[in-house]
Amino acid sequence: MDPDAVAKAFVEHYYSTFDANRPGLVSLYQEGSMLTFEGQKIQGSQNIVAKLTSLPFQQCKHNITTVDCQPSGPAGGMLVFVSGNLQLAGEQHALKFSQMFHLISNQGTYYVFNDIFRLNYA
Amino acid sequence: MDPDAVAKAFVEHYYSTFDANRPGLVSLYQEGSMLTFEGQKIQGSQNIVAKLTSLPFQQCKHNITTVDCQPSGPAGGMLVFVSGNLQLAGEQHALKFSQMFHLISNQGTYYVFNDIFRLNYA
Repeated sequence: MDPDAVAKAFVEHYYSTFDANRPGLVSLYQEGSMLTFEGQKIQGSQNIVAKLTSLPFQQCKHNITTVDCQPSGPAGGMLVFVSGNLQLAGEQHALKFSQMFHLISNQGTYYVFNDIFRLNYA
Repeated sequence: MDPDAVAKAFVEHYYSTFDANRPGLVSLYQEGSMLTFEGQKIQGSQNIVAKLTSLPFQQCKHNITTVDCQPSGPAGGMLVFVSGNLQLAGEQHALKFSQMFHLISNQGTYYVFNDIFRLNYA
């Protein structure tokens, strides 16, 4: 399978789920998964989704600008690096962000082992 | 060793070498190392440093805004996620960038296995 196609499909699935059904992201993480969100470190799928669903906005739309990917080593992992804009409902200006994911292959599907998110302030 | 301290030390070493002695970056990569620079994929320490030394500017200064790190798995690797500004000599405005590194431990030192760089255009 083409890694770039896998990365692109993951990115589309991740952000469409984030924008439409944030609690549904829980299935993309596992217990050992790590999220660093604006410097705050969180571990475990339940804790990660609790953080994401408690962010101080309800409606949002991610618009993706770039997606880069690389194999992370011989074990079949994949690094995905994303840049884009986050539009919050009622806000005039979108927020720029960068985010990276380390996807680990598990019986034919991928889950997110590492997730680091940063807003890029102007 | 504190992973955050290792990440911070790596980042300081990497960008100070980039700004003062770009060819010296060759020792931080190995033959299997990968760089994706603004979407262009390059592999191998010599090719990576050839790319970095051929960028269309000579003097530059990286100013780091954020450094995040996470262990990349049980084998001792580390993911380092950086945001900052790149000031080119003679340019009025700095360029914002994001970059991620996957560091692999090798006999007590780290080398860069994965490197993805993107400018964050306004």
